[in-house]
Amino acid sequence: MPRLDPALSSVDLTRAICDIPSESGDETALADAMFEVVRDLEHLDVFRDGDTIVARTRNGRAQRVVIAGHIDTVPINGNVPTRDVEVDGEPCLWGRGTVDMKAGVAVQLKLAVELVRPRLDITWMWYDHEEVEADLNGLTRLSRTRPDLFAGDLAILGEPSNGQVEGGCNGSLRAVVRTHGVRAHSARAWVGENAIHMAAPILTRLSGYRPRTVEVEGLEYREGLNAVRIGGGVAGNVIPDLCEVEINYRFAPSRDAAGAEQHVRDVFDGFEVEVVDLAEGARPGLDAALAQEFVAAVGAVPRPKYGWTDVARFSALGIPAVNYGPGDPRLAHHDEERVPFAQIEDVERGLRAWLI
Amino acid sequence: MPRLDPALSSVDLTRAICDIPSESGDETALADAMFEVVRDLEHLDVFRDGDTIVARTRNGRAQRVVIAGHIDTVPINGNVPTRDVEVDGEPCLWGRGTVDMKAGVAVQLKLAVELVRPRLDITWMWYDHEEVEADLNGLTRLSRTRPDLFAGDLAILGEPSNGQVEGGCNGSLRAVVRTHGVRAHSARAWVGENAIHMAAPILTRLSGYRPRTVEVEGLEYREGLNAVRIGGGVAGNVIPDLCEVEINYRFAPSRDAAGAEQHVRDVFDGFEVEVVDLAEGARPGLDAALAQEFVAAVGAVPRPKYGWTDVARFSALGIPAVNYGPGDPRLAHHDEERVPFAQIEDVERGLRAWLI
Repeated sequence: MPRLDPALSSVDLTRAICDIPSESGDETALADAMFEVVRDLEHLDVFRDGDTIVARTRNGRAQRVVIAGHIDTVPINGNVPTRDVEVDGEPCLWGRGTVDMKAGVAVQLKLAVELVRPRLDITWMWYDHEEVEADLNGLTRLSRTRPDLFAGDLAILGEPSNGQVEGGCNGSLRAVVRTHGVRAHSARAWVGENAIHMAAPILTRLSGYRPRTVEVEGLEYREGLNAVRIGGGVAGNVIPDLCEVEINYRFAPSRDAAGAEQHVRDVFDGFEVEVVDLAEGARPGLDAALAQEFVAAVGAVPRPKYGWTDVARFSALGIPAVNYGPGDPRLAHHDEERVPFAQIEDVERGLRAWLI
Repeated sequence: MPRLDPALSSVDLTRAICDIPSESGDETALADAMFEVVRDLEHLDVFRDGDTIVARTRNGRAQRVVIAGHIDTVPINGNVPTRDVEVDGEPCLWGRGTVDMKAGVAVQLKLAVELVRPRLDITWMWYDHEEVEADLNGLTRLSRTRPDLFAGDLAILGEPSNGQVEGGCNGSLRAVVRTHGVRAHSARAWVGENAIHMAAPILTRLSGYRPRTVEVEGLEYREGLNAVRIGGGVAGNVIPDLCEVEINYRFAPSRDAAGAEQHVRDVFDGFEVEVVDLAEGARPGLDAALAQEFVAAVGAVPRPKYGWTDVARFSALGIPAVNYGPGDPRLAHHDEERVPFAQIEDVERGLRAWLI
């Protein structure tokens, strides 16, 4: 079994964690190694469910912060093991998971060992299956079986945010907008009705759509409404009777699920709309006193998070939640995924300074 | 080996021919049975190439007519063997191939045997692989290896035309019209360019397109321009960088291939257009004296043929060519394909009266 040494620097620990492959569904080796690090520490109550690990201090503090990170990655594509590279003169660690989000996990694991008596109680959560369907996500499972473990006054997800604090996240709705025609031989098109032609107004509305920018608790969220897939057609000589446009609506956290669905139905008024996926966003939660204190302590300028992250799960439980982790989110899932050493160290320093 | 008895009525011979399955690529059993019928007839020179059979009278007539039919069918779908059915009080033969086009082939085979000294010389042609790619078509092969066999003053294809004479055929062009965008995560759509949105004007032009009706040699050809397929999209959270719309343009035989391509390029001006398939149509050829005589003899009102058929091959060789066969072309390839007995008998009577 691979072993992890928490005495390593956070950069070296990131390297060690990245070099234990853990694509979604294959996290056990890494979960085992992390569990070995914390299982016998006296200052932590440790709970394990599958490849999800929860480790809690129990110092009787007035407030508790949940600090979480997923340990799985998207598929490796020739980018493990990691290697050290220099980008624009800056030393970086290159490879799958360096950004999303093993650098964040490494910092968390190191601090879990070292912060024996932090000034807030801490619930560390490391979980599996974040990069795949929500049903498989370790946090989904845990929230069903042990909702009590989620208790806290603030949650911090170590998702890559360039070492800044990104508050909340946009919601996401996917829907299929359909047209129905009548099939016919294309040599006698007038006998049929062309479902692809009938989709012209759908694309026209999409291309003319002007997304909002919405201020929520001081942060500006940019929305977006986009076709992500289109399909239709039977054969090269057949008038198609069906066309489907799958759209993805990213909406500011001030809009709830029902409001998002209504908006999409309004935009595509007159067409069949089937919502296939809908996740509310999360308000930034930065008006909570503890969150403000955290932001001040790490010296960050809060920004909005555009992509949906698991902060929304905490937000739905009424717990303010933010993203704070090393790595540029635009490099997540990228084959050239890489994180500057300095960002890993900054995040370690920021969290430690606030928690010590 | 199944055997065919040309002394059967044309309806019974149609039934026997349909009950020998001959999906494209699997025509040998039927070709063998037909070859057996004609191979030893003294009044015919018989030539066979693969599953294509050519049988010619050589009576030294001043004029020669080519009468042709394909012996393959589209895939059987529980509709072989045939059965007798009654539709609106009319006795019909139901099953794969009854319309497209074994009833026509049965009439031809019967007449090939019986018309020992017709008043015109006749070249009977029965060929394979009509329902699939043009490259496999028995006529394509034969026109390369034995172009001399195509010599004639008029060609009659037994394609279903409800026992009427359908002149010429529309041409057909297929093209892919493409848009190119820039891929991005849909949470940050503004970083990318949505290729599906960019396709809006393509669909708008298609849905606003008003096809021409063009008179050619007295027949009215309806054109058509249609999307037959649309595709685009990478994943539910990615702004797509490519959208492809496959269009099918059916054009009157007064327009040649270059003119058809230019028209499509004009319609989609500003977009990338790749022509993937292009077949010219065929002029009706009804101004030829022999064709007029034929039309008068069978007592038919000439109509335009909309679908592309092998008449275009003869037309390209300068031989006037028409479609004349039993069966409703709208039932071709249909699972409820069926032909009225009376139409088979009418076509037999019409051809015989003209040729005797």
